[in-house]
Amino acid sequence: MSKIKIAQFGLGPIGIETLRLAATKPWAEIVGAIDIDPEKVGKPLMEITGDTALRGASVHRSLDDLMAKGCPDVIFHTAVSKIKDACAQIEPIVRQGISVVSSCEELLFPQLREPELAVKLDQAAKAGNARVLGTGVNPGFVMDLLPVCLTGVCRNVRAIHVQRVVNASTRRGPLQKKIGSGLTPAEFERLFNEGKAGHAGLKDSAALIAHCLGWKLSELTETGKAVVASRDIRTRHVEVKKGQCCGLHQRAEATVDGEVRLTLDLKMYLDAPNPHDACQIEGDPPLNLTLNGGVAGDAATVASLVNAAPRILKSPPGLLLMTDIAVPCAA
Amino acid sequence: MSKIKIAQFGLGPIGIETLRLAATKPWAEIVGAIDIDPEKVGKPLMEITGDTALRGASVHRSLDDLMAKGCPDVIFHTAVSKIKDACAQIEPIVRQGISVVSSCEELLFPQLREPELAVKLDQAAKAGNARVLGTGVNPGFVMDLLPVCLTGVCRNVRAIHVQRVVNASTRRGPLQKKIGSGLTPAEFERLFNEGKAGHAGLKDSAALIAHCLGWKLSELTETGKAVVASRDIRTRHVEVKKGQCCGLHQRAEATVDGEVRLTLDLKMYLDAPNPHDACQIEGDPPLNLTLNGGVAGDAATVASLVNAAPRILKSPPGLLLMTDIAVPCAA
Repeated sequence: MSKIKIAQFGLGPIGIETLRLAATKPWAEIVGAIDIDPEKVGKPLMEITGDTALRGASVHRSLDDLMAKGCPDVIFHTAVSKIKDACAQIEPIVRQGISVVSSCEELLFPQLREPELAVKLDQAAKAGNARVLGTGVNPGFVMDLLPVCLTGVCRNVRAIHVQRVVNASTRRGPLQKKIGSGLTPAEFERLFNEGKAGHAGLKDSAALIAHCLGWKLSELTETGKAVVASRDIRTRHVEVKKGQCCGLHQRAEATVDGEVRLTLDLKMYLDAPNPHDACQIEGDPPLNLTLNGGVAGDAATVASLVNAAPRILKSPPGLLLMTDIAVPCAA
Repeated sequence: MSKIKIAQFGLGPIGIETLRLAATKPWAEIVGAIDIDPEKVGKPLMEITGDTALRGASVHRSLDDLMAKGCPDVIFHTAVSKIKDACAQIEPIVRQGISVVSSCEELLFPQLREPELAVKLDQAAKAGNARVLGTGVNPGFVMDLLPVCLTGVCRNVRAIHVQRVVNASTRRGPLQKKIGSGLTPAEFERLFNEGKAGHAGLKDSAALIAHCLGWKLSELTETGKAVVASRDIRTRHVEVKKGQCCGLHQRAEATVDGEVRLTLDLKMYLDAPNPHDACQIEGDPPLNLTLNGGVAGDAATVASLVNAAPRILKSPPGLLLMTDIAVPCAA
């Protein structure tokens, strides 16, 4: 079998880790990367990633420049969270027949926020004979795909409840800031309500689950509150005083026929005890799942992206959902 | 969307429950059943199942007789555990263009025991433009598909360990007998070694996991021991004296490159405390899953079969594995 030619779009920390992981896979051949940062353009990937396995490939300023060197089969896209930005970047790629696996949270279920853009992206992918998939660990696995997967052994499902508790002290700096560490609780809540802080993708996870179960949601609400530090906390990246925000408690609730049947509850804060993921299916049979210790964020996100590449290439062209393609599997 | 026309092959307890569940689904239209029992042939399904939703359909003695009344899209096959028997029954069905979802344990990964039959069945299904899938709750979900699904967020996987503890007192009579209840421990172990008692499908689950991870197994062993009753036990179906067999402890181990990297451990016995399913992935990140209370057997088996029907019809024709098709989902 010939190797899958891989390129990377966006060389932030997740993009670099994605490339490094892909370079370890015997089925992957890294052909290059795209980034607009003038500090990076033209440099060898080996220099940027420190990974000798990436020798021979370099950073290009545009898709055209990359394609002049060779056409990848799959591009990993780790550049933006907003679907509009993602579509503008991805559409030209799929039109060239290159499939895309993206970490863009809103691409998990693009039909929620931008149904018209989703149709356009689907058409562009089909026209180019390419696939597009949004995935990751959350959204993309623990709070959506895994609960859906469990319902496969249920005769019927009345309600689904998912909880995730993340100890943010173990995560990288940008995440510790995104959850409001060091802000006053009021500041965090204002930023959350403006869409400038918080976890992206919770409503998207809820919408994907509802879509899979054929639930018509009459309401889908989301709340975000600050978790207040009960003592001073210092990590490698941030310093939080007692009384300041040290993370978030975010919650999505979906109503079907006047009844709350879907709740996704996410706590992500510094020094959170007992990190775990849990899911209860109220159904026949009822199911009660715990992932003790949870799923470590960044390693798992990168793995989700890389592991998806061989699976999307076996799927028909178009805009794909995680629940449309084959079961996740370490590739 | 037009309904999926459904028929049932085999009207044992699982077959009847499968039909009854399918009849509750808005996407399904039940067109009939096949069984060789002269007591059942010709009778209305409503009479056999006691379910008024099954009015209008009846039991036929053969595929030809069923087809004379109308051609189903999908047949649920719940008749045998051995792949040779299953293939003989299923091949004529798929040649007619009818897809099959089977509870035959050895069909989970037919390449293990009968690679040549698997090729033939795949060819027959493709020739008829039909799909074949072997599934269930175990094998088919808790000890194979679910562990594979977890690895989707792992950068790499060194080993997988799965445990399942079933309280057989809560299960139906045939299962309580299949696990050796009331035999002497020596009798059970003799029958197990002759392939006449025990759980079918454990090696098949191990082989499916290894296949998905690209692991070449140098060894795949299975052991079965009696669990000995520490006191007299009486259920609705069996009576077991202290010292007799009250169930089994069955275990499969798979070796890759001289190292045991895959263990599946199944305890199924009367009055087993703390029934649960658990899985540990030794990988990056490591994962530790528990299904508290486990997955109730018969309801889940029937659900697996019925929920698979819409998914296989979206897959390309041929012999399918659970890990080839879309993620399980309550349909």
